[in-house]
Amino acid sequence: MRILILGGDGYLGWPTAMYLSAKGHEVSLADNMLRRRMHLERSTDSLTPIPALQQRVEAWERESGIRLRTFVGDLCDPAFADHVVEETLPEAIIHYGEQPSAPYSMIDREHAVFSQRNNVEGNMNILWAMKQSVPDCHLVKLGTMGEYGTPNIDIEEGYIEIEHNGRSDTLPFPKLPGSFYHLSKVHDTHNIHFACRIWDFRATDLNQGVVYGIETDETRLHPDLATRFDYDELFGTVLNRFCLQAVIGQPLTVYGKGGQTRGFINIRDTLRCVELACENPADAGEMRVYNQFTETFTVAELAKTVQAAMVEYGGNIAIEPLPDPRVEAEEHYYNPRAEKLLALGLDPHLLSDELVKSLFSNIERHRDRVIESAILPHTRWR
Amino acid sequence: MRILILGGDGYLGWPTAMYLSAKGHEVSLADNMLRRRMHLERSTDSLTPIPALQQRVEAWERESGIRLRTFVGDLCDPAFADHVVEETLPEAIIHYGEQPSAPYSMIDREHAVFSQRNNVEGNMNILWAMKQSVPDCHLVKLGTMGEYGTPNIDIEEGYIEIEHNGRSDTLPFPKLPGSFYHLSKVHDTHNIHFACRIWDFRATDLNQGVVYGIETDETRLHPDLATRFDYDELFGTVLNRFCLQAVIGQPLTVYGKGGQTRGFINIRDTLRCVELACENPADAGEMRVYNQFTETFTVAELAKTVQAAMVEYGGNIAIEPLPDPRVEAEEHYYNPRAEKLLALGLDPHLLSDELVKSLFSNIERHRDRVIESAILPHTRWR
Repeated sequence: MRILILGGDGYLGWPTAMYLSAKGHEVSLADNMLRRRMHLERSTDSLTPIPALQQRVEAWERESGIRLRTFVGDLCDPAFADHVVEETLPEAIIHYGEQPSAPYSMIDREHAVFSQRNNVEGNMNILWAMKQSVPDCHLVKLGTMGEYGTPNIDIEEGYIEIEHNGRSDTLPFPKLPGSFYHLSKVHDTHNIHFACRIWDFRATDLNQGVVYGIETDETRLHPDLATRFDYDELFGTVLNRFCLQAVIGQPLTVYGKGGQTRGFINIRDTLRCVELACENPADAGEMRVYNQFTETFTVAELAKTVQAAMVEYGGNIAIEPLPDPRVEAEEHYYNPRAEKLLALGLDPHLLSDELVKSLFSNIERHRDRVIESAILPHTRWR
Repeated sequence: MRILILGGDGYLGWPTAMYLSAKGHEVSLADNMLRRRMHLERSTDSLTPIPALQQRVEAWERESGIRLRTFVGDLCDPAFADHVVEETLPEAIIHYGEQPSAPYSMIDREHAVFSQRNNVEGNMNILWAMKQSVPDCHLVKLGTMGEYGTPNIDIEEGYIEIEHNGRSDTLPFPKLPGSFYHLSKVHDTHNIHFACRIWDFRATDLNQGVVYGIETDETRLHPDLATRFDYDELFGTVLNRFCLQAVIGQPLTVYGKGGQTRGFINIRDTLRCVELACENPADAGEMRVYNQFTETFTVAELAKTVQAAMVEYGGNIAIEPLPDPRVEAEEHYYNPRAEKLLALGLDPHLLSDELVKSLFSNIERHRDRVIESAILPHTRWR
């Protein structure tokens, strides 16, 4: 298949590009280096050293013999969005190309407005580029489990059948997003759903949980093929951050009561989920929604898992509660479904002590690069 | 009360400014002349002549002795949004200040993106201006009944209690908006709801039906106090357009089967609803939603009403179906609730033959200003 990856320089985009090209797909990628620029702005960085995009592409060509086609530009520029889609005529577009951080969107007004503008307009420009050049293309869009928030009922995959006053309808699952970033994904979902209804587009919205891990079959081949490992308050996800805190001997900082439950997924499973979505496109006019995670944990459980793995690893680390910088339920019901990707063939890599310990050793290798001042939260929701 | 009206130069904003100032409130208004500029762009215009904003303000001062304070600028400019709010320190903000046309948002990509950017960013800037200067202010935001679309269940006022797998929660009513404009209002709703949850804001989201009529106690006082009467394909609402077609002897053009059912409201009731919302503010942390209409009609019923009124008026007019330029259900279940504003004291002005005939005579007065080429639809959803 001809596959275009938007955000192909990112944490997930880059490993996805290698993985799908290794499977024989014709992969192009587009990026505007947003994540790298945001790190420059905030004086933070990936723990793993990340070569420039062209050096990554050359390293992958040396390893695999495959040359990825790259486009550097901003999806908010409609001419760029059109150009990339016209040049590549993709059968599937995997859209990771958005500002991906909840705390970054909560820094101040400028960052909140930027997050919504960047994500919503970039996504709209892609919808229009598809309409013009590839109306039958399948849009595989990365959403987030955070679109749902934490309602007091089971979370279905995108839609829910509601019985009300003797009638019923299957409607979009109500959304309670928890940041201006999460809101941008909710806006995207509504816009894509509309495009499917009026233009007969095919789309799959992947409401992904928190991703952890940095190793895939491809990233292991050479250090220049590594993907980023973010651990700072803005771009780091919780398991990565706990592992880093454990290695550098800082207490694991649990926000609030630690009863916040979320869906989690190994980066290897992310790649497989995206592949499954591409191989099984949505019908014309359909916006499918898959919940993309394999397990749920509370934040407190994760901290205990990391603490126990550190004991096996030969260390000893404390867990320290911090006042929650976010506004979120710190204890709540949480029962989201995630059956559709399993039905397509996903075989999950569940969280294990082995994985946590391999993260520890990965982190130790780059311990000299840790920016300690970037770990604790400074951005507050209120 | 100190009341700030955003979009105070518009179809509803201007009569609201006069009405609330006549009631003794201290009214300021802000506008960027967007509606006037959009008409310039599309070579269309209000049927009623509309003086420049400062001439309207002077005319109102002559009639009432009240000087309205005005601010001209764009809410998408954060400095302007802050300035207006800091200068007026409102107890209530009535936010009409958005791009209000579904067809305008569907012209092409540029108009779709503009509609979402203008509405979403302007609204976000107001939220941040409130946070900085008046966190206890009550935001009265104009939404639209079109946010809900036409689900197969009764439409509640903003929220619905869902029972699911033995548990229940009251959640935002699922949305099926029908244009990029309607989507912008859904995005606003989600953003405002979030602001109420994290910042304890007070907000009332008024999901308004289609407004008709141009006469209020204040607009009648002098021709320079008139509000706009739009009848063109982009800015005209259906009843206004039918009345105009009847007066100029054109068949009433019903889109598709005409079974599209919508909520309708007289402009006088709009003013009263907004007043009731201001007088009864939401609680801190609460985003109330009121469905703001007084009757529902199918488009075909409205056409027949206008046709019958024209017979009484001494004319004879045909009804002509046109292929629907929109993508929408042309026959559907529709049972939205609208009880909360009645409970606060709304006493509806229902649609009558008398009202339709008074519209006819208003239109006849300005018949020489009709731009016939602007009436039929050219903008198509597909």
